[in-house]
Amino acid sequence: MSRLDYKQAGVDYAKIDPLKILAQQAAASTAGNLQRHGLTEIAASRGESAYVVDCGEFLLASITECLGTKALVADAMRKVTGKTYYDLIAQDTLAMAINDLITVGATPVSVHAYWATGGSAWFEDEQRARDLVAGWKAACDACGVAWGGGETPALTGVVHDDRIDLASSCVGLVRPKTRLTLGDELAPGDAIVLLGSSGIHANGVSLARKLAERLPEGYATKLADGSLYGEALLVPTTLYSPVTEALFAEGIVPHYAANVTGHGWRKLMRHAATLTYRFHTLPHVPEVLRFLAAQTGDDAREAYGNLNMGAGFALYVGKADAARTVEVAKSVGVPAWVAGAVEAGPKQVVIEPLQLTFGDGDLHVRA
Amino acid sequence: MSRLDYKQAGVDYAKIDPLKILAQQAAASTAGNLQRHGLTEIAASRGESAYVVDCGEFLLASITECLGTKALVADAMRKVTGKTYYDLIAQDTLAMAINDLITVGATPVSVHAYWATGGSAWFEDEQRARDLVAGWKAACDACGVAWGGGETPALTGVVHDDRIDLASSCVGLVRPKTRLTLGDELAPGDAIVLLGSSGIHANGVSLARKLAERLPEGYATKLADGSLYGEALLVPTTLYSPVTEALFAEGIVPHYAANVTGHGWRKLMRHAATLTYRFHTLPHVPEVLRFLAAQTGDDAREAYGNLNMGAGFALYVGKADAARTVEVAKSVGVPAWVAGAVEAGPKQVVIEPLQLTFGDGDLHVRA
Repeated sequence: MSRLDYKQAGVDYAKIDPLKILAQQAAASTAGNLQRHGLTEIAASRGESAYVVDCGEFLLASITECLGTKALVADAMRKVTGKTYYDLIAQDTLAMAINDLITVGATPVSVHAYWATGGSAWFEDEQRARDLVAGWKAACDACGVAWGGGETPALTGVVHDDRIDLASSCVGLVRPKTRLTLGDELAPGDAIVLLGSSGIHANGVSLARKLAERLPEGYATKLADGSLYGEALLVPTTLYSPVTEALFAEGIVPHYAANVTGHGWRKLMRHAATLTYRFHTLPHVPEVLRFLAAQTGDDAREAYGNLNMGAGFALYVGKADAARTVEVAKSVGVPAWVAGAVEAGPKQVVIEPLQLTFGDGDLHVRA
Repeated sequence: MSRLDYKQAGVDYAKIDPLKILAQQAAASTAGNLQRHGLTEIAASRGESAYVVDCGEFLLASITECLGTKALVADAMRKVTGKTYYDLIAQDTLAMAINDLITVGATPVSVHAYWATGGSAWFEDEQRARDLVAGWKAACDACGVAWGGGETPALTGVVHDDRIDLASSCVGLVRPKTRLTLGDELAPGDAIVLLGSSGIHANGVSLARKLAERLPEGYATKLADGSLYGEALLVPTTLYSPVTEALFAEGIVPHYAANVTGHGWRKLMRHAATLTYRFHTLPHVPEVLRFLAAQTGDDAREAYGNLNMGAGFALYVGKADAARTVEVAKSVGVPAWVAGAVEAGPKQVVIEPLQLTFGDGDLHVRA
């Protein structure tokens, strides 16, 4: 089977990026508006995963995130097994926002749901609607956030019939302000603790869908561990806020945190500093990711450069806090291990067991 | 021409409502999660236009809102005049969130953009993309909010090719807490100050689009004032936060506020209390709304029950503050007038000049 890449899967970042850069510049230019209210932005949060405003006694963090196209996998799998899987992708949608928000050190406080359908008919499948609501509530409960409300527009002519565009916004507080984890203290010698992923999470799904089209049995293809490809894709994203909240309760403040989403392990050098991130211990790769990489013809560079490959979140902590950070994560049920360290050196991610290096030019997340 | 109604326009509220009620109940059940962080929700904000959390020294308000299908009007009008109008619908999108957020008394602090397209190709129209960015920034500047970031997903298979799903989220602070305007002090004798609308805003657009399909010249139809129907529809929603901020600066705290969106003037009895809202002075009706009502065969009950008919926002203030509220609104360029009063009596909206009454059974916004 020939190689599949993101461009074939319908996502052409080169076309999106010019607008994104224009938007980032315009957005940055609005910072001064906060002065009217006696507030200031934390400028270092631009380019990071959540936006942070200094409100005096506390910091306010916010984010809006989209699920992407994972609902299409759920819709396809419904035909295979009869299950809706919307309880699971509800968790994914919230995870996209919450796992980003906590990277800045915020406690997630409340979320809003954004469920845009192609028309009122979407709601006729009551089981699917009920599962969506139940999964959304369960994920809120798991993260200790209040579900504040939401929007359920029927967008005939914008969204396809019987499809749904799922997104969520999340607001959080950094209080006390010393919990802010934007990397000011990130330094050589810090340990990097990685937290295990449950599977593909919600990044790389366009590619995974494209692969399904090329497999003779599609989503019903059996993986080596006996699971169906489609069901394995739908294992929901791990929610990491229980870990960051437990760390806070234990008095551990990470120096930096990164959510491993699009760009895979390249995201591990997200911070603006010029530092080397050297990894010595790799996680077990979830079977679905191993299969995806093998079937699409991806070498390790492509796979680790685009998928999480078993590591869904990274905590950069002082060396003395490393072992305890692992323990705290495990205590709330999330796999964790000391995977590497921060070193002085050029900006790069070095994955020693794979003899693989991503350099500075391999990641562009800033304008 | 025969009558057109919302069901024909593709929006069937009866189908959406059961899910909405289920979701509202599930959402309400997550309130207790806030206790883990020493926070509590302002329960009265459920069913209102923004969600409010009590954080001790201040209140945190948040909202996520969708533009709806107004982008389809802009896309159609591009073919008529060559202009993109995306600077205008950017303002609409932000107005949907900001005008809701300020009803609770919050100062809007930051917004996130949600721009979901049918694929990367959407971004190839550079003028449209530039206009979207410019309009978004201008609206942020007008409201004094910081544009914190956003999401620009390419959702091939979910969103139609060359279409965009525009939404925004907004976070605000109620500080001091005495600025909260959830209606605790709403009482007989209060004056109702209405603020002028600029046109259709972003509610009733599905109906307006359906009408365009039935007009021989479609969006290019000339209205009585010489404007094109499509261009008149695209006059952007008035941003009302400059009014609420100016009122705050003047020491005027409204007892309640309502954003006149879907359900038109029925929204004026949004508050849970059993009170009569009696109106004596009607605004000038924007030509586009007069035309829409006439062409769709709507009588006054249909028109005022679904469209803003010239009134985009309502401020319920102590009688002694009424005249000054009007002056303050006008001082920031927003038309305003004392339009009516709150009375003891059954829950109803009475529009005297039209001999029209909406009763309690005409509006359902709560679970």
